[in-house]
Amino acid sequence: MTDIKDQVRQIRENARYDAETVHAILDAGLTAHVGFVEDGQPYVIPMLYGRAGDRLYLHGARKARITQLLASGAPVCANVTLLDGVVAARSTFNSSMNYRSVNVYGHGHLLEDRSEVLDALRTISEHVFPGRWEELRDPHESEIGQTGVIALAIDTASAKVAAGPPEDEEADYDAPVWAGVVPIATTLGDPEDDGRLVEGVALSPSIAALAGRRL
Amino acid sequence: MTDIKDQVRQIRENARYDAETVHAILDAGLTAHVGFVEDGQPYVIPMLYGRAGDRLYLHGARKARITQLLASGAPVCANVTLLDGVVAARSTFNSSMNYRSVNVYGHGHLLEDRSEVLDALRTISEHVFPGRWEELRDPHESEIGQTGVIALAIDTASAKVAAGPPEDEEADYDAPVWAGVVPIATTLGDPEDDGRLVEGVALSPSIAALAGRRL
Repeated sequence: MTDIKDQVRQIRENARYDAETVHAILDAGLTAHVGFVEDGQPYVIPMLYGRAGDRLYLHGARKARITQLLASGAPVCANVTLLDGVVAARSTFNSSMNYRSVNVYGHGHLLEDRSEVLDALRTISEHVFPGRWEELRDPHESEIGQTGVIALAIDTASAKVAAGPPEDEEADYDAPVWAGVVPIATTLGDPEDDGRLVEGVALSPSIAALAGRRL
Repeated sequence: MTDIKDQVRQIRENARYDAETVHAILDAGLTAHVGFVEDGQPYVIPMLYGRAGDRLYLHGARKARITQLLASGAPVCANVTLLDGVVAARSTFNSSMNYRSVNVYGHGHLLEDRSEVLDALRTISEHVFPGRWEELRDPHESEIGQTGVIALAIDTASAKVAAGPPEDEEADYDAPVWAGVVPIATTLGDPEDDGRLVEGVALSPSIAALAGRRL
C-alpha cells in the first residue's frame, strides 16, 4: 500500500473491468467499506453486502439517514479489502502489505418491490451465512418494512492484488537483514452457542460450514 | 451491522469523542479505509497508517493524485474496522456482526519539515512492525523525496463496538434453531523468508514478535 499509484485517474479510465477478479474478491469478503458524500463530507461505513451479477445489495434501517443517502442515486464507492500479509522488505520504503482489494463505483436505489426486497435480503444473508436462510423462519412483514434494501449497480470496478515477496533495491539484497512475508489469515472459528438453545438443538449445518472459512 | 442507526447525525453531534476507545481500536488495526471526495465522487482506499496522539499519519507516492487530494485540506474520513464475529440469530433480521469500528474525521496536510516527515514515517512503520525501523537502514534521501506524508488532525471521531450473543425477539427463543456467534480471528502467522537472505541471517526480533499477533 506504500506504492499507491494514481488510482483515481486509473479508475476513471477503467470503464470496463475484470469481472472475474472483481467478483472473486467480492465473493470472498464479508463486509464492504461503503463511501458516500453528504454536503461535501465523505463518510465510510462498514456494511454487510451481497452480490448478484453486477449488482451489490446493501441494507440498513429504512428510516436511517445512511440508507436514504445510499438510496438517493448519489455516487457511492464500496471497497472490499482482504489482507493477506505483511511484507517485510530490507528497507522501510519497500515494506508494504499483500492484499486483495476491489473498488466498486455506482449509484444506489431503494428496492420497493416486495419480491425483489426478499431476493436481495436472501442474497445478503446467503453471502454471509450460506444455507442459513432456509433454516430460519420467514421474515416478519414488520421486519421487511423496517429494512431499506439498496441495489448498487456496478458502473465501474477495479481490483488491485498485491502478492508475493518484497521487491527490494538490488543493493539492499547484500544487507544482513531478514526479509519476507508474515501471512495474515482471517478465519472463522468454532461456533459458540448463546446458552439459550431449546433442549436438544444441534449446531445448524449452515453454521457448522462456516467454521474454518478463511476470507 | 444490520442495525445501523443514524450515524451521520450522531457523528456531527459528537464534537468530542471517547479517546480511549478510539485510540485502542486505531492501535489494534493495521489498515484504514480512507474516504475522500473529488468532484462529488467518493473514493475509499485502504492505507497503512500510524497514530501519534490525536493525529493520524498516512503516506503515498508524493506525486500521486490521492496524496495531493488528502493533503489539500479537504475533508477526509478514515474508518478502521476489526471484525470479531458473525452473529447467527434465530432470525435473519437479528443476525449481524460483532466488530470494533472507528470513524475519524479530519483535514489533512502535507508534512514538509524533514524531521517531521521522518518521525511520521517511523510512526507508520512502528504501527505495522514495532521495532523494525531500527533494524533497517536509514531511508535514502530519494525515498523521502518520493514519499508524501499526510498528517490528519482528528477533529472528531466515533467508535462503535458490537459484541456478545445475538439479541432475538422473545418469541423466537422457543424456536428449535441453533443461535450464537462464530468468532472471527485475524491473525499474523509464521514468517516466510523470501529465499534471498544473506547466509546465516536469522529472523529479525521485530518480525518474530509479529507472529501470532491478533488484530
